[in-house]
Amino acid sequence: MGMIGGGSDAMIGAVHRRAAFMDNEIELVCGMFSIDPEISKSSGLSYYVPEDRIYYSWEEMLEKEAALPEGERMDFVTIVTPNRFHFAPAAKALELGFNVVLDKPMTFTLEEALQLREIVNRTGKTFALTHGYSAYPAIREMKKRIADGSIGKVRRVYVEYTQGWLSKRIELKGGNNAGWRTDPKKSGKGGCVGDIGTHAWHLVEYVTGAKVTELCADLLQVAEGRPIDDDACAFMRTDKGFTALLQATQIATGEENNIRLRVYGEEGGFEWFQQEPNTLYVKWLDRPAEVIRVGNGYLSDKAKWVTRTPGGHPEGFIEAFANIYRNFALTIRARHAGEEPTADMLDFPGVEDGVRGMQFVETMVQAGYDPEKKWHKWIEK
Amino acid sequence: MGMIGGGSDAMIGAVHRRAAFMDNEIELVCGMFSIDPEISKSSGLSYYVPEDRIYYSWEEMLEKEAALPEGERMDFVTIVTPNRFHFAPAAKALELGFNVVLDKPMTFTLEEALQLREIVNRTGKTFALTHGYSAYPAIREMKKRIADGSIGKVRRVYVEYTQGWLSKRIELKGGNNAGWRTDPKKSGKGGCVGDIGTHAWHLVEYVTGAKVTELCADLLQVAEGRPIDDDACAFMRTDKGFTALLQATQIATGEENNIRLRVYGEEGGFEWFQQEPNTLYVKWLDRPAEVIRVGNGYLSDKAKWVTRTPGGHPEGFIEAFANIYRNFALTIRARHAGEEPTADMLDFPGVEDGVRGMQFVETMVQAGYDPEKKWHKWIEK
Amino acid sequence: MGMIGGGSDAMIGAVHRRAAFMDNEIELVCGMFSIDPEISKSSGLSYYVPEDRIYYSWEEMLEKEAALPEGERMDFVTIVTPNRFHFAPAAKALELGFNVVLDKPMTFTLEEALQLREIVNRTGKTFALTHGYSAYPAIREMKKRIADGSIGKVRRVYVEYTQGWLSKRIELKGGNNAGWRTDPKKSGKGGCVGDIGTHAWHLVEYVTGAKVTELCADLLQVAEGRPIDDDACAFMRTDKGFTALLQATQIATGEENNIRLRVYGEEGGFEWFQQEPNTLYVKWLDRPAEVIRVGNGYLSDKAKWVTRTPGGHPEGFIEAFANIYRNFALTIRARHAGEEPTADMLDFPGVEDGVRGMQFVETMVQAGYDPEKKWHKWIEK
Amino acid sequence: MGMIGGGSDAMIGAVHRRAAFMDNEIELVCGMFSIDPEISKSSGLSYYVPEDRIYYSWEEMLEKEAALPEGERMDFVTIVTPNRFHFAPAAKALELGFNVVLDKPMTFTLEEALQLREIVNRTGKTFALTHGYSAYPAIREMKKRIADGSIGKVRRVYVEYTQGWLSKRIELKGGNNAGWRTDPKKSGKGGCVGDIGTHAWHLVEYVTGAKVTELCADLLQVAEGRPIDDDACAFMRTDKGFTALLQATQIATGEENNIRLRVYGEEGGFEWFQQEPNTLYVKWLDRPAEVIRVGNGYLSDKAKWVTRTPGGHPEGFIEAFANIYRNFALTIRARHAGEEPTADMLDFPGVEDGVRGMQFVETMVQAGYDPEKKWHKWIEK
Repeated sequence: MGMIGGGSDAMIGAVHRRAAFMDNEIELVCGMFSIDPEISKSSGLSYYVPEDRIYYSWEEMLEKEAALPEGERMDFVTIVTPNRFHFAPAAKALELGFNVVLDKPMTFTLEEALQLREIVNRTGKTFALTHGYSAYPAIREMKKRIADGSIGKVRRVYVEYTQGWLSKRIELKGGNNAGWRTDPKKSGKGGCVGDIGTHAWHLVEYVTGAKVTELCADLLQVAEGRPIDDDACAFMRTDKGFTALLQATQIATGEENNIRLRVYGEEGGFEWFQQEPNTLYVKWLDRPAEVIRVGNGYLSDKAKWVTRTPGGHPEGFIEAFANIYRNFALTIRARHAGEEPTADMLDFPGVEDGVRGMQFVETMVQAGYDPEKKWHKWIEK
Repeated sequence: MGMIGGGSDAMIGAVHRRAAFMDNEIELVCGMFSIDPEISKSSGLSYYVPEDRIYYSWEEMLEKEAALPEGERMDFVTIVTPNRFHFAPAAKALELGFNVVLDKPMTFTLEEALQLREIVNRTGKTFALTHGYSAYPAIREMKKRIADGSIGKVRRVYVEYTQGWLSKRIELKGGNNAGWRTDPKKSGKGGCVGDIGTHAWHLVEYVTGAKVTELCADLLQVAEGRPIDDDACAFMRTDKGFTALLQATQIATGEENNIRLRVYGEEGGFEWFQQEPNTLYVKWLDRPAEVIRVGNGYLSDKAKWVTRTPGGHPEGFIEAFANIYRNFALTIRARHAGEEPTADMLDFPGVEDGVRGMQFVETMVQAGYDPEKKWHKWIEK
Repeated sequence: MGMIGGGSDAMIGAVHRRAAFMDNEIELVCGMFSIDPEISKSSGLSYYVPEDRIYYSWEEMLEKEAALPEGERMDFVTIVTPNRFHFAPAAKALELGFNVVLDKPMTFTLEEALQLREIVNRTGKTFALTHGYSAYPAIREMKKRIADGSIGKVRRVYVEYTQGWLSKRIELKGGNNAGWRTDPKKSGKGGCVGDIGTHAWHLVEYVTGAKVTELCADLLQVAEGRPIDDDACAFMRTDKGFTALLQATQIATGEENNIRLRVYGEEGGFEWFQQEPNTLYVKWLDRPAEVIRVGNGYLSDKAKWVTRTPGGHPEGFIEAFANIYRNFALTIRARHAGEEPTADMLDFPGVEDGVRGMQFVETMVQAGYDPEKKWHKWIEK
Repeated sequence: MGMIGGGSDAMIGAVHRRAAFMDNEIELVCGMFSIDPEISKSSGLSYYVPEDRIYYSWEEMLEKEAALPEGERMDFVTIVTPNRFHFAPAAKALELGFNVVLDKPMTFTLEEALQLREIVNRTGKTFALTHGYSAYPAIREMKKRIADGSIGKVRRVYVEYTQGWLSKRIELKGGNNAGWRTDPKKSGKGGCVGDIGTHAWHLVEYVTGAKVTELCADLLQVAEGRPIDDDACAFMRTDKGFTALLQATQIATGEENNIRLRVYGEEGGFEWFQQEPNTLYVKWLDRPAEVIRVGNGYLSDKAKWVTRTPGGHPEGFIEAFANIYRNFALTIRARHAGEEPTADMLDFPGVEDGVRGMQFVETMVQAGYDPEKKWHKWIEK
């Protein structure tokens, strides 16, 4: 693995690295960790990257690595830069033959996303997008059971993602991650809707297998003077006939990172909370609710595939992230060996999720500021 | 207390009686408990009502009671009939000089509600509407603390009321409470929105002191063929500047009676769950959340006024209901004695809440079926 | 109902009255509410007791009531005085032909308890002891399911009752209920062990149907200088072969009234928390735990018999207490009518529970201060 | 890192490896992964260990590695064999100059433990024992706050560790981890008490800084015919004056890995549950309980040192384990560089914890089977 971004002054880069390292399938061999050469160098050294493979520009890195003999050059590159710097290195890496892991939202604009899709499809390289929450074992179990019809036809979904860390305009103080996230020039059209709304939307499509077809939304700029949405909600319709209610906020004072997903079918309903991710509740009409706990023998193989510890030994966010990395690595390895990756290996978000994520933001922004509040068709472009 | 409705074959009547009896301030002296004379009689006898004060028509009851000497006749009447039979007896009782307790929604139509308001105001009688959930001590504590500014300016409210008992069309089977609730001819324009949506809306206005001014809604008829909404959600704007998201559903399979209320201000946020009503969570930006538990010394006098047991001895739904009855009784008693009831005594929902509840249903129905999904002004009429 | 004790300056009296009134089966007709005549009178008046049936000595009350014609005199007397004043009025009431409700612990000494048992058995009057926690519907459900063998043979029980209100020596300040509870001359041999340990022990015997046969205990006087136990724990053996671990404390700073009961059998286990009394967890070896919620259709008739509201409408401590009163009243009524009370009616704690409760305290005190810490046989005396 | 044990057929080995890899401070360079040469080889290869450093006897491994030049040979060895095979390789590794990580219980007998302590002290090598639960950030926070006096003088501790997986005698079926754990010849004197009781005891001493001085215990063999304890409980006294109640069981049917730790002081109390390890409750006498959540800015530096993600991104069991590995690695690195490790780095369980753990088992077994149930002094030997 090579890395673009993720210097010692960044947060999410460390999650990526730990997720990549945990299963011993991946090692960090090179990187351009910061646009500040000092930081890139010191970060690389502290990550035990050989000095000659610490780079100071991503173009240089991609070219030099591509020039290395196979087996020596990196197998894939992880790009964890702010999202307006996603497209260019990702595109170039793919064109040079590298597999790519990208953080979400996939690109700065929908146009870039569509272009990237074209490149991924044309080059045939393996591409992953780190929608980490969808990789929790309990979410996999929910997806499997819904697909198996255990709760009957899905009729109603509620998803909420509540954070409070942007309650105050801390972006004005600097020294935190709020700066680029609340600046439309840096984050793209969406604020909250792009940063966390995309995760909430993705969970809905992931666990149900449905696609949102139209939505009616409200985008709010709650903290006084903030030039971008910090709260978003939407009524959503899907191609499987059910509706969903989505809410995402970053101004729910005192909330940490509170994702709650509920899916109700004709016969039963699921409930899951990200902050206690190893528990999945199933509710029934005429009998007691059940508490499914990750790590137990009664879980599906689909969930077991992404489980590392027995019941009662909690797994967390880094493990969920690691599930994407491990599947990605195993897929690359299989393809390299000329084998077909299994369905379980291939179960990581890809470029299609990335495109739809950008379409989601586009549609939410269009609908959310529409004073008429009418139904807006999903923007395919 | 006299009672219209509430025979042995009804459910909510028993809650009203237990709530009324609990504090020994109220006794049941007469009633017309059912349109079925057999049931009215057997019910009355089983409630220890003297046989000569068991009635078989509400008109007769009101007239005969009114003819009794003061001190002997009932002090007030509780009407717990289906809501299309609320207005007539309530109006007549008021005109005859009786105080009235009514179940919500107050009337069958908004027109009736407006008329009833006029009668209440003109007669000056004491009138209570049993929005029982607003009478929990934890809700009172939340209201008090919000009013005191403890969480700063309120900016965002989420309220949800999820039930699952109408997941299937059990109204087709009969033998349950679903029949009139799902028949627009009997329940009025609103189904879910009237039955439980009103409670959710009421909590928002009650704890914040704000009024909803406009809303954009979606009303759904989820169970196949059901002729009335069984799920409703809305974006709401208020006269205090904050917005709210409301969801109410009766098809969330496996849910019981799950009300969850969250109010976020600039400095902190509250969370409350009806199914564990004695706990109130307060969340803060830069310090640990707090768990306020009803019955402890540190609660406000406002909450203590409606608390009967010390901390750790849970109070429930009947106690919340009883708070309305006790305050109503104490208010009547005070007025009877020529005294001014205290603010705590007067803290029970009244005719104004009833009118606004009917306006809420009216506005939700208008907005919720609007294919344009635009913002709809609150219907004052 | 007549009442001895329970003046306006007492706490538990109000719980008894509300519990008695809730179901409209019982009315308060007379009482001697305090040894302070002023308080007895003002209390009685505020409880709407006719002035001529407010008494100023319990002897007088019992004699005068006994002299009233049947149908007019009270049907039973509730005694809610401190426990050293339980025996004399209870004994006299029984001898005079009154049924009796007594708060726990039943008497001041075991000797009194044995005498009282003799009187109850000889007079044949109906006698109830208000171990209120055993009357929650979820506890009834647990008892039923254990008896039905749903979790197999019981093998291990854990019961804990943790309070924190005696963390500091508030008895030195006065003005609270701590005074007599921490004075061996007033509370009897046991402090914490008598006040709350008895409830914990009673739950074990109640839900399993077993009897404790021997125990090894530790009694602690944690708050400096307190002359009586404020914390107690014990290993217990029973006549059904299983063992139990009991802990009770009043110095667990910050705890309210935290009873937790767990019963593990060969096939499954139950868990219940008093502070959320409407939920009962059942855990299984190879399948998900279940969440049984009171008020749902799938509960046993035994639980439904003591349930007043549908699922999701929480019942609380007063309702649990009211279950004892209602059963007691129905039993008296049935016996009065020459009918046999049903098993459900008869399911309230009686004199045998009271005797065993006093034996429990006696055994715990003997064992708990034994420096040898050996197994102590249950003291039958 | 080299590894003895931890082949692909073992469970805990994988936890050790992931914990070691996560922070990229440690790589696996050699190992003897199984006594079965086939498994050792295939495991080693699948772990990407060079074939010439996969060994087939631990003696050979230690000798060959010791013969390698510094910088090339392993820096430390992790021993994850069943506990009767802990002492010999650990002793030899230390004598050859390697640092050692050992799983708990440290040795098969107390005698071995005392010997090992002598070797560690004499050789001066760095030694860690993986009491993983003590390395959770919330536990560190609790320890810090107790030491700072936030809850006043500690007076009462409750610790419980409940599992249910040994409810049935699954050891008779084979094919699972129950075999050696329930065979006194393989597990040592203690069954449940050694396997999980030691963790419970260790948490008590770790968070309070106290030492247990005497105890009165009950050891049970609940599953019919099992020749070793599967349930244990004890009253414990400590050198800081407070008492503790410990319970550990493996026959609590339906429980997973349920550790619950409560510490009550004069002013407040802590509560923590391992299955939701990122939350720490603090309870107070006269104000609301607080919910401390790992990852927030208000936590102590001590907790932050072992935290990898921001609030709301749950960390789990592997991360806790990884805290021991990272501290161990940083300590070795510091010492190698001639620097003094910080107090935070040195905060991992060592040989002294291992010795006391074995003494705990010894004392519990002596006391737990004593029919006299008297207080037993801590066995220092």
